[in-house]
Amino acid sequence: MSIQALKEEVARQFGTPAVVIDLDVVERNIARVQALCDAAGVANRPHIKTHKSPVIAAMQRDAGARGITCQKLGEAEIMAESGHDDILISYNILGEEKLNRLGRLLSRAKVTVAADNPVVVAGLPQAAALAGRALDVVVECDTGRKRAGVETVAEAVALAKDIASRPGLSFAGFMLYPPENAMAETQAFLDAATAGVRELSLEPRMVSSGGTPNLVNLGKVKGVTEHRAGTSVFNDRMMLAAGVAQLEDCALTVYATVVSRAGPQRGIVDSGSKTLTSDTGGLEGHGLILEHPQAKIARFAEEHGFLDLSACNDRPSIGDVVRIVPNHVCVVVNMVDRLVTVRGDKIVGELRVAARGRLT
Amino acid sequence: MSIQALKEEVARQFGTPAVVIDLDVVERNIARVQALCDAAGVANRPHIKTHKSPVIAAMQRDAGARGITCQKLGEAEIMAESGHDDILISYNILGEEKLNRLGRLLSRAKVTVAADNPVVVAGLPQAAALAGRALDVVVECDTGRKRAGVETVAEAVALAKDIASRPGLSFAGFMLYPPENAMAETQAFLDAATAGVRELSLEPRMVSSGGTPNLVNLGKVKGVTEHRAGTSVFNDRMMLAAGVAQLEDCALTVYATVVSRAGPQRGIVDSGSKTLTSDTGGLEGHGLILEHPQAKIARFAEEHGFLDLSACNDRPSIGDVVRIVPNHVCVVVNMVDRLVTVRGDKIVGELRVAARGRLT
Repeated sequence: MSIQALKEEVARQFGTPAVVIDLDVVERNIARVQALCDAAGVANRPHIKTHKSPVIAAMQRDAGARGITCQKLGEAEIMAESGHDDILISYNILGEEKLNRLGRLLSRAKVTVAADNPVVVAGLPQAAALAGRALDVVVECDTGRKRAGVETVAEAVALAKDIASRPGLSFAGFMLYPPENAMAETQAFLDAATAGVRELSLEPRMVSSGGTPNLVNLGKVKGVTEHRAGTSVFNDRMMLAAGVAQLEDCALTVYATVVSRAGPQRGIVDSGSKTLTSDTGGLEGHGLILEHPQAKIARFAEEHGFLDLSACNDRPSIGDVVRIVPNHVCVVVNMVDRLVTVRGDKIVGELRVAARGRLT
Repeated sequence: MSIQALKEEVARQFGTPAVVIDLDVVERNIARVQALCDAAGVANRPHIKTHKSPVIAAMQRDAGARGITCQKLGEAEIMAESGHDDILISYNILGEEKLNRLGRLLSRAKVTVAADNPVVVAGLPQAAALAGRALDVVVECDTGRKRAGVETVAEAVALAKDIASRPGLSFAGFMLYPPENAMAETQAFLDAATAGVRELSLEPRMVSSGGTPNLVNLGKVKGVTEHRAGTSVFNDRMMLAAGVAQLEDCALTVYATVVSRAGPQRGIVDSGSKTLTSDTGGLEGHGLILEHPQAKIARFAEEHGFLDLSACNDRPSIGDVVRIVPNHVCVVVNMVDRLVTVRGDKIVGELRVAARGRLT
């Protein structure tokens, strides 16, 4: 089947918009990340927020990953039900409802959670008590990104001490998500924090770094034991822009139909903010149309993508099916209950996005 | 129960983030729109893309709405299954898969579709033939918004003629979505298009205008027979900014927990772009926190909302549950499988977002 025939067949079987992944590319991406981690002597703990599929998580595990990362309990619960038993939840977990669920999860899987403040640490023993088992806790450290994480070494050490003093909690180490250009600062922070906790006779068994763009920095921060990359399994236009992926590494595309050519310079595809989402990733335009790279997806309605075709020599016709690399793939997967799977120009089937639709 | 107690109880029962609607406010909003339509002598055909719930659509019908509007087939199918039998799909429907579904839908409900080009019109007879029943088609006209719709009266008249010439299709009239400040231009377009089709012995039985902000313009364009408003059922920060809703008209809020205060001027809530979505609606910041209106939801990660608290005197504490009015409510509802329902400070239950999770 040609790509043209594949597009027509996907549209015929599933309608458009359709969110399609090429499993050949997924497998190559998984193997590449594993090889990078192996070469750096760092364990691979992929972040499943990108695919939300226990099946793809199993492909990552079978390729050599040691454990997985989840961003919320709902994801971790689905993964544990499918037999994934070494889970880092890289998030502050707080509140009675979540602590009870965390306790139940811990009773059936090895779970590590992150914390960046004492209020969160104070709640966690409730989960450990419910499970009757120790809960590993890493201190989330901010080495420049100004997201979550303690901002100073003193806070990191104090929080480690706090964790170690609580019944049922075990200080496991540190979690980092360094800016790509801050390896030296991150090393300095980690060295000082490690020295600080060692003075308290604590040892960071686990030091987790993160991010697909940081795969190029693997091995640069001494003491890091594992890495969390999410987007790398599919890649997207942000990763293209960051120079960490090529077009042939983009496993996911949204198949869309051109439904209108309302003006000579304009067109409309049937994918708007309810499919591609408004996450820009800091880029101009809302995606890359493979067949018309000069077309700009200039703005959205919920079910319309409005194309600026003024820079296109070859303009799409109404009825054409096009493939769009989204700006941010993680949020696109989160919009759908099923992904269409292909290999090259052959349809394989569908894959459930099992951990979707759970806000918590 | 106080609002504080309600927030704690919602968090305890459902966890956060939770997407919560107040049914008292929903009912008031439905009644207000119906009264506005009645006063203007225009039929009310609410757009269900906002709530995606047959139950709320039934509330709208029981209040006096005549039919509903859907943006895609998947929504219309769910509504028809629940007994809604007069449906406008305000979208160009194209491609074999969709035309077959449209035919099946038409065999069990009165369906009107929009078209803005001859390629779409040429496909529609297939659906009518499958249903063995005439399909009403309105010509979508663009009177200044530069979205979908023909841009000229000549195109509108030519498309009406095309529709009327096709087997199984009936020219039903025109569909408009006028810019709020373009009533005169819209009137001129509609008058000329109506005169044009009358010369062909065609009559626009149905002239549909749209948009919640255009509720203030009801009755201003002569010849309009019905109006499609969606957002008005819940309202959001965009509608507040447009001056067409007050805070007490905002039926939907996202309950979120403050999970970190990583810096003195910063905070983090557990609602990011996978809950509130990155639709900005042209506004600064990503939502209004009712308890801290000076706090700015400055940016997102997928599960983090990063707060800039520099303008706040009263800053939230870790563990606080806050209520957020989202910028764009339609895309937030689309993120969840169920809404939590309350009345005032009492929990009622949950409501399924039945038409969600269907891209097509």
